[in-house]
Amino acid sequence: MNSPARHVTVVDVGPRDGLQNEPGVVPVEAKVAFVEALADSGLAVVEVTALVSPKAIPQLADGDEVFRRIRKKEGVRYPVLVPNEKGMDRAEAVGVREIAVFTAASETFNRRNINASIDESFARFAPVIARAKRSGLWVRGYVSCAFGCPYEGVVRPEAAAEVSARLVASGCDEVSIGDTIGVAVPTQVPEVVGRAVEAGVPPGRLALHFHDTRGTALANVVEGLRAGIRIFDASAGGLGGCPYAPGAAGNVATEDLLYLLHGMGWETGVALPGVLAATRALARVTGRRPASRVATAFEGAAGRPA
Amino acid sequence: MNSPARHVTVVDVGPRDGLQNEPGVVPVEAKVAFVEALADSGLAVVEVTALVSPKAIPQLADGDEVFRRIRKKEGVRYPVLVPNEKGMDRAEAVGVREIAVFTAASETFNRRNINASIDESFARFAPVIARAKRSGLWVRGYVSCAFGCPYEGVVRPEAAAEVSARLVASGCDEVSIGDTIGVAVPTQVPEVVGRAVEAGVPPGRLALHFHDTRGTALANVVEGLRAGIRIFDASAGGLGGCPYAPGAAGNVATEDLLYLLHGMGWETGVALPGVLAATRALARVTGRRPASRVATAFEGAAGRPA
Repeated sequence: MNSPARHVTVVDVGPRDGLQNEPGVVPVEAKVAFVEALADSGLAVVEVTALVSPKAIPQLADGDEVFRRIRKKEGVRYPVLVPNEKGMDRAEAVGVREIAVFTAASETFNRRNINASIDESFARFAPVIARAKRSGLWVRGYVSCAFGCPYEGVVRPEAAAEVSARLVASGCDEVSIGDTIGVAVPTQVPEVVGRAVEAGVPPGRLALHFHDTRGTALANVVEGLRAGIRIFDASAGGLGGCPYAPGAAGNVATEDLLYLLHGMGWETGVALPGVLAATRALARVTGRRPASRVATAFEGAAGRPA
Repeated sequence: MNSPARHVTVVDVGPRDGLQNEPGVVPVEAKVAFVEALADSGLAVVEVTALVSPKAIPQLADGDEVFRRIRKKEGVRYPVLVPNEKGMDRAEAVGVREIAVFTAASETFNRRNINASIDESFARFAPVIARAKRSGLWVRGYVSCAFGCPYEGVVRPEAAAEVSARLVASGCDEVSIGDTIGVAVPTQVPEVVGRAVEAGVPPGRLALHFHDTRGTALANVVEGLRAGIRIFDASAGGLGGCPYAPGAAGNVATEDLLYLLHGMGWETGVALPGVLAATRALARVTGRRPASRVATAFEGAAGRPA
């Protein structure tokens, strides 16, 4: 079970993709504790924040301070979303070692989300990636709305594949293909992954990012595994969603993903109880119930193993 | 898409498996309206109630009256859970045409649930099945805790298979293999189905019954489809669970199952908006939020198509 062939990397995007969608602002201390608890649970990648305009996402206005204050663990990646050169200045000032840039497979979503066409978004982050590469930073690229768009409806797998390949060609070390609004069904997964690989994205550098808006996230993960994907995004407690995508609920919960993977014999290096503790501590601050089915089952079972 | 090969039968067990676990008692009128709305949405099988001791399940004490009052639609099956001959007397009195009996794959669960060993449970419902067959009734048999048990932990696939085959041999027209406490993961599904078929259960008479306690239900359904299963249980709004299984949350929501199946190109004959309407009407009576991800997405999206 410890062979690399049975290993899956779980990327927790909760502190960024989750907290950016919280109705209230979470205090810096709670954010720092959340990131640290996630890394302590064994997660090898924890996306810390987004260094974007505080006007666009006030929930993450304290991103610089959060990043500076987290105790960094050896061997853990702490990517930070960086939309433009201004964000890159901030990232460099706090010593970020991993960044993430983002675009979408849907023109309309991209325009509504960041007021730029897909081409314009590439032009915007090209100098960011160039600077990152010069400094030896690791770069992740996000493809939003790769399985469906709230404005355009169906998104062609070719569109997601083309944007993914372009991100790799632009210097991204990893590409995360996202179902931002949680509409994907399992039959779409091999199509999208297959097209992306055909277009030139190495499967080992491809992550899948599912939202559980319609309950299909784990079913999609299983198809991703079958298609050879070994990196999956999730958020502790099922936090998150996209503030610009109407009706979108949260990312698939890290707890639910871990329960599935471990039950199927995949090794992740992550301790589920540690993630549950991180989720519970954050829920005490936000006052909101976790959207994780496993977290709920644990509560109901009063300590019975999930 | 209308070829029989692409057809899946969805069995809504909400009025029975769901309502038996509601904290409060739902008025007869609301139960009748719920069953009728589900049948009107196109569901071909709606499990109406359980004719068990009102002391055991007070929530369903009015089962006879509910059954009598529902407007029956041509071509729809309305099974009723019947635990013993006393229940069978009641079933015959109200003109039930389809019944369900139940046992478990786990000895300990069966003892705690109905105070009988697996053998004793077969002895108890053997005369019930015999009477049903003499009257030309259709009989469904449930196998609880086929994927895991709150007391015994892991359940061997052979145990579930053996009990399933015994139900068929005892006269059941259909067997529903259940993950009563919602612990199953996709890798278990082909094992359990495979063993059951090997043991003599025709795949066309095998249903799978998943609970979404840990978020894995739809992933398990996809593996069931892959293994050739074409009958799945669900409950509108994700109602339910088992009052005797600590920590168990609800059945997979009918809405979520339909979203998955339709998205994957399976035809069910069921209109998702009709099920959503049934769920909403019941939620107004119980005052509880539906556990269905799709129902929640619909609410949040204020009418945007799910």
